Amino acid sequence: MEFTAQIIANYLGGTIDGDPDVKVTTVAKIEEGFPGALSFLANPKYEPYIYTTKSSIVLVNDDFVAEQPITTTLIRVKNAYEAFASLLDLYAQSKQPKSGIEQPSYIHESAKIGADAYIGAFSYIAEGVSIGDNVKIYPQVYIGPNVKIGNNVTLYPGVVIYEECIIGNSCMVHSGAIIGADGFGFASGADTNYKKIPQIGNVIVEDYVEIGANATIDRATMGSTILRKGVKIDDHVHIAHNVEIGENTVMAAQTGVAGSTKVGKNCMFGGQVGVSPHVKVADEVKVGAQSGISGDIRKPGTILLGSPAIEISKERRSSAVYRNLPELMKKVSELERTVQELLQKLDNK
Amino acid sequence: MEFTAQIIANYLGGTIDGDPDVKVTTVAKIEEGFPGALSFLANPKYEPYIYTTKSSIVLVNDDFVAEQPITTTLIRVKNAYEAFASLLDLYAQSKQPKSGIEQPSYIHESAKIGADAYIGAFSYIAEGVSIGDNVKIYPQVYIGPNVKIGNNVTLYPGVVIYEECIIGNSCMVHSGAIIGADGFGFASGADTNYKKIPQIGNVIVEDYVEIGANATIDRATMGSTILRKGVKIDDHVHIAHNVEIGENTVMAAQTGVAGSTKVGKNCMFGGQVGVSPHVKVADEVKVGAQSGISGDIRKPGTILLGSPAIEISKERRSSAVYRNLPELMKKVSELERTVQELLQKLDNK
Amino acid sequence: MEFTAQIIANYLGGTIDGDPDVKVTTVAKIEEGFPGALSFLANPKYEPYIYTTKSSIVLVNDDFVAEQPITTTLIRVKNAYEAFASLLDLYAQSKQPKSGIEQPSYIHESAKIGADAYIGAFSYIAEGVSIGDNVKIYPQVYIGPNVKIGNNVTLYPGVVIYEECIIGNSCMVHSGAIIGADGFGFASGADTNYKKIPQIGNVIVEDYVEIGANATIDRATMGSTILRKGVKIDDHVHIAHNVEIGENTVMAAQTGVAGSTKVGKNCMFGGQVGVSPHVKVADEVKVGAQSGISGDIRKPGTILLGSPAIEISKERRSSAVYRNLPELMKKVSELERTVQELLQKLDNK
Repeated sequence: MEFTAQIIANYLGGTIDGDPDVKVTTVAKIEEGFPGALSFLANPKYEPYIYTTKSSIVLVNDDFVAEQPITTTLIRVKNAYEAFASLLDLYAQSKQPKSGIEQPSYIHESAKIGADAYIGAFSYIAEGVSIGDNVKIYPQVYIGPNVKIGNNVTLYPGVVIYEECIIGNSCMVHSGAIIGADGFGFASGADTNYKKIPQIGNVIVEDYVEIGANATIDRATMGSTILRKGVKIDDHVHIAHNVEIGENTVMAAQTGVAGSTKVGKNCMFGGQVGVSPHVKVADEVKVGAQSGISGDIRKPGTILLGSPAIEISKERRSSAVYRNLPELMKKVSELERTVQELLQKLDNK
Repeated sequence: MEFTAQIIANYLGGTIDGDPDVKVTTVAKIEEGFPGALSFLANPKYEPYIYTTKSSIVLVNDDFVAEQPITTTLIRVKNAYEAFASLLDLYAQSKQPKSGIEQPSYIHESAKIGADAYIGAFSYIAEGVSIGDNVKIYPQVYIGPNVKIGNNVTLYPGVVIYEECIIGNSCMVHSGAIIGADGFGFASGADTNYKKIPQIGNVIVEDYVEIGANATIDRATMGSTILRKGVKIDDHVHIAHNVEIGENTVMAAQTGVAGSTKVGKNCMFGGQVGVSPHVKVADEVKVGAQSGISGDIRKPGTILLGSPAIEISKERRSSAVYRNLPELMKKVSELERTVQELLQKLDNK
Repeated sequence: MEFTAQIIANYLGGTIDGDPDVKVTTVAKIEEGFPGALSFLANPKYEPYIYTTKSSIVLVNDDFVAEQPITTTLIRVKNAYEAFASLLDLYAQSKQPKSGIEQPSYIHESAKIGADAYIGAFSYIAEGVSIGDNVKIYPQVYIGPNVKIGNNVTLYPGVVIYEECIIGNSCMVHSGAIIGADGFGFASGADTNYKKIPQIGNVIVEDYVEIGANATIDRATMGSTILRKGVKIDDHVHIAHNVEIGENTVMAAQTGVAGSTKVGKNCMFGGQVGVSPHVKVADEVKVGAQSGISGDIRKPGTILLGSPAIEISKERRSSAVYRNLPELMKKVSELERTVQELLQKLDNK
């Protein structure tokens, strides 16, 4: 696709400083610009780049005043960042959506599939599956028996959904994510051999959830493992059996939540965080990367860091002392010596 | 499936308090019960729920005495938990096992496949593969050249087994697990480029092993990476080349064991544990979540925590002091001041 | 394959002590040897094994002098380790490379595929894809629209490459690795719902890169996520959007690098390391396992450990004191008591 500055300015309701006929085909960061790209300037920190950028068009805020000559074409809009984001959306949506059923694919005769579906080659849709409208199933996806999928869902290549799981509307699941594999449950017997505890529950993923590549959401022993509306989890995140993650909680890559833990809504977890089993985490809790949560977090909005995690400013103070522990130990040794000398002096007086 | 209280009581050798004709189709926790579900009460902590549960049937111990009116139907058995577990097994086994070979699938003419196999569509079985009886291979599985698989094995969708690997009897491998990919071995040359060291060994998985979703077990450089009988590893666990994991050792999600390390039998590792290369870990060692093992653990039964991991009670005491390090530092500073004053006072006397 | 000692000695330019007709079919470590295997002895530490090994042939250095009777056949070469490595290479290369296009596979008519390709069954090659010569694509691989792949590339079963990504020459990608899934980018709106930021960039993998099983390399928001020439990343490694990893940098398993971070060249990261977003790491930096990098590392060659990571010798000293924190606290308490007593004594004088 190719757009002129004029077309973009018209679409955004902006005004042009420069060449209305200059054309762009893609977008770029202002500091990485090149001819044919459109960029934006919102953060004043990046203003120096507007005098040197090679991008053909830059979106700026209405009130931007240039302090040096500018060679790129400007489009002035009310809010440059929002205008850029709306163009990004337009760009992303402009890709012709896939549709139709590619061959060979395996669709059980009892499966129900809604309107405007795309089902890629080598995908497998088992008996009793029900799929809503406008669902895009890329190649090599597996959907197990009796799985229910809502409308406007995208499943990228290689996604696996085990039997009986439920996926809401407007969800996106990236490649290699496994939804509904058995929870890790074994009973130790009289000998040292473990006996598998059947995992007969399922996974429920509510609306507007995004699941990253190679993430794993295990099915419940009984009942359901639940990702509430709007949850976003990154690549390699592991959600164990019977866990519940509250609405709009986000978790960065490689974080793991152990069995039966309940995490509140609007929480933010950094990467590589671990949460112990059977823990309750309140709403709006923020957890720094690599932290370990080993007990209930009862106060909403708590900000935590460390393993075991404590209140972040406390952790930072402890961590600062930790870096100087050898000096602290030396001070204590010197104190001990001085106090010994004092004791002797005192005895001698 | 649908069962009456009478049928279940007969099967379990129990007695009924209530309606012998009430029907159930599934199971639920007593606190999450609903009409049509069967629950159990074993832990006295949950007793209050028996007066409010919506489950249609609850299994209780023979000696249970109700202290309030009960509306659900009770089945009295010797051990309510064990009776429930046996019903769970029955429920899990009652699912009609898959069988037959779905099309399209790719089975090399030289592959040998035992009795009662299920081979799902889009699965690939290479030359020289040998597969035992009663093996269930779900769709989109890859089994490389000369792989040997025992009896009663289940491979879920998307499992990959590289060439020459050996899987024992009664193993279960969950979706996305990769067995036998190359170990991470490179030699640094004269320049800064690395030269790949060919990884020509294999992986041996003994009997009764369960491997979680998206786990990776790398093949040995030479010889074998080995998971001994009864090992259970959770989702995202990484086992590097030439590692050996002893009998009945269990490892929770996202744990990683580096190259050539030997872990003993009956060990228990929490989630996100890391073990350094070329380390020996004794039998029955327990390691807390997020710990790091960087040297040999020689004493069987040691319980470890922390990174680097130390004996758990020692780590907990250190960790408790760590949380109060700023206070400790303040005390030391105050002591220094007091001691200075003391020195001056003494000099003045 | 089967080789006599004579054939191997001729190939390596070595001389034989023992039976020139003895045959081997595989290789083994000298301490794990068995009849039919070839081993080597380079490290004097392993010399005792040469008197007891069951390997049929052992490569030794020219100047090796036996101190006890030897039953195995020796081949004397200039450098036993290098000779062994060259045999390993030969052994690995001797496997007949796969070629041809297996059915069923899905290859869009607009895709261009070079000479000597292998395309396994159930692989999917989308529109506009361009693939170089001598590329081996195992079964169940997905290659999205407009992906470009160089020469001599191997993609193992189940690899997924999203649209528009670029893979250089001589790369190897192991099973389950996902290249080009969406970066984890969401904007928080007026309410608590997140709005997805379209990820319209791509991933560029340069020449001689190896990517481990189940690794994830996310596509850039705009521009490219880049793995430079010679990068080696192990299983389960996560590289977030807009990250750049410098030439010949190696990262061990389960390490994660957050968004927009730039890592220099010739760096070495241990397993389970985490790096914060928007960080710059200099060249030749070494990072110990489980470390967390949360700020810029400006000095090339720095060696780091801990979370947050500090200079390794500093971390080790702090860690040593940490293990004895309870004793340190006890000392401080005793000091406080002694100083109090001193104060009283002094007042009494």
